[in-house]
Amino acid sequence: MTESKTLKTVGEDAAIAALQSIAGKARDAVIGSGDDCAVVPVEGGTHDWLLTSDPVVEGIHFDADTDPRLVGRKAVGRVFSDIAAMGGEPVWLLINVTAPESCTLEWLRTVYRGARSLCRKYGAQIIGGDTGKGPIRALHVFGVGRVPRGDALRRSGARPGDAIYVTGRLGGSRAGGHLKFEPRIEQGLWLREQGWPSALMDVSDGVATDLRRLLTINRVGAELDVEAIPVSPAVRRLNDDGQAPWMHALTDGEDFELLFTVSPARCALFESSWKDTFRLRCTRIGAITATRNVLKLREADGEVRTWEAHGFEHFRR
Amino acid sequence: MTESKTLKTVGEDAAIAALQSIAGKARDAVIGSGDDCAVVPVEGGTHDWLLTSDPVVEGIHFDADTDPRLVGRKAVGRVFSDIAAMGGEPVWLLINVTAPESCTLEWLRTVYRGARSLCRKYGAQIIGGDTGKGPIRALHVFGVGRVPRGDALRRSGARPGDAIYVTGRLGGSRAGGHLKFEPRIEQGLWLREQGWPSALMDVSDGVATDLRRLLTINRVGAELDVEAIPVSPAVRRLNDDGQAPWMHALTDGEDFELLFTVSPARCALFESSWKDTFRLRCTRIGAITATRNVLKLREADGEVRTWEAHGFEHFRR
Repeated sequence: MTESKTLKTVGEDAAIAALQSIAGKARDAVIGSGDDCAVVPVEGGTHDWLLTSDPVVEGIHFDADTDPRLVGRKAVGRVFSDIAAMGGEPVWLLINVTAPESCTLEWLRTVYRGARSLCRKYGAQIIGGDTGKGPIRALHVFGVGRVPRGDALRRSGARPGDAIYVTGRLGGSRAGGHLKFEPRIEQGLWLREQGWPSALMDVSDGVATDLRRLLTINRVGAELDVEAIPVSPAVRRLNDDGQAPWMHALTDGEDFELLFTVSPARCALFESSWKDTFRLRCTRIGAITATRNVLKLREADGEVRTWEAHGFEHFRR
Repeated sequence: MTESKTLKTVGEDAAIAALQSIAGKARDAVIGSGDDCAVVPVEGGTHDWLLTSDPVVEGIHFDADTDPRLVGRKAVGRVFSDIAAMGGEPVWLLINVTAPESCTLEWLRTVYRGARSLCRKYGAQIIGGDTGKGPIRALHVFGVGRVPRGDALRRSGARPGDAIYVTGRLGGSRAGGHLKFEPRIEQGLWLREQGWPSALMDVSDGVATDLRRLLTINRVGAELDVEAIPVSPAVRRLNDDGQAPWMHALTDGEDFELLFTVSPARCALFESSWKDTFRLRCTRIGAITATRNVLKLREADGEVRTWEAHGFEHFRR
């Protein structure tokens, strides 16, 4: 029976799919849910708008004693990462805050200072929002970004043979990286302007989970080279549970790096062009294959194994 | 000391003002926080865009056993009411949901059906959002509306002598009206197109609290005629605590009616024009005065008293 299904038993992706089917298909040139942002055309304008929203909830995304400046930074950074994943620039933000009435004004102010500081860095403005009572502290940030008309980078477009790249290093979130990540706005803008990616998304739930989403959308598979995974030094230091560092790197979530594919004929030029432009690492971690929804791992011993596991998915892990 | 101030001791308006001052003044032609929506221009576009967001939290805005269809309806209705208060039409919505993993998919689906039904009625589309874990069920709806360039209705513009009007009847929220209110989109559009109001806002926290906000913005005062207040029949039925029905009507909150002012020379024509257009009641409840921030009540006995009390304000009441 439908009634007995909970968010825990169905998982986040199925829940979102069920809700999307109720919301209905978007009209006109609107790109609805399913990508990192919704893309809407603006009549008479030179740009499309990117609309996105993310929650940051106490006990889930931050702790009671987390530096509030980093809470504000993270709340804005998550939204910026979504906008970066469309090759856009952030423009306006609304911030909703709910909190118990015992919450200090100073805590809220410091959250806002953290939010404002990241906004200034990327030229965005906080222009509204609402506050209200709630049993715990939670922020919901709504972001509006923009991208030249018709140019938004998409999750769709990956083809068998395309190389898979990821920016930065993976798996540092458990060591505090989830509070200090840099949204890849600059890299997203450059990738869009230069036209390198065939498909692109940000890594919010771990490469394992997010890459599977990319595979589903594109009806393809992938093979990852375990030895190529750029593992965060923090993972190696933290590693005390017997799980391989690369496994943490692929499943820990909250990296907020960019994951994208590039046509094989353009890889060499792309890689040298990237190196000429950024100091940030960009690593080729595998390739797209034709076997739909199958994720394979080439391990250190040279063996290729099919990977059934999921990375972090909200509501179940 | 700043550190000892909490949301309870400072109240919502002071908290929002403190956060706005951190967010900074909006650039360009942007109208930032302080009105019902932020208004942003689009280069070369024929419309300005209205951005707004509202939380709807379990235990605050709805109960565990509230019909989920009405929860979704209310979450969308609050945002539509903000857009109506700018004379705009709603276009796109994002809905963030946080919930414990025990939350049933059917509950969420029904919330979405309620949200969709109100969206369809007013031609808006749900095009995105996010779901995530949280200790209780909460929705944050982000709305984008539009209004012909430069034409957004504002809270500012009221002058001494202007008549004060309110749509519908006040005070029904405690009897369930807060779940079933009709956002005054049609009326807001008509008022803007006809150019009647000198200032307009929606009533979300009770006329007493919201009118005070209007007075502060316009540096004026007001005198309300207690006998003219259109009290909801539900208030008269519920009234069992010795408080006058008109006091409930002015302070209960969550009416989501429109509160606006009209120049005295135009009142007669406005009133007949309204009656020719809508079956909905619209009541003249008082007038703007020159005495800054002073709210007076003309009571049934003919006496005029200054009213210091506040209506519902989040975090304290």
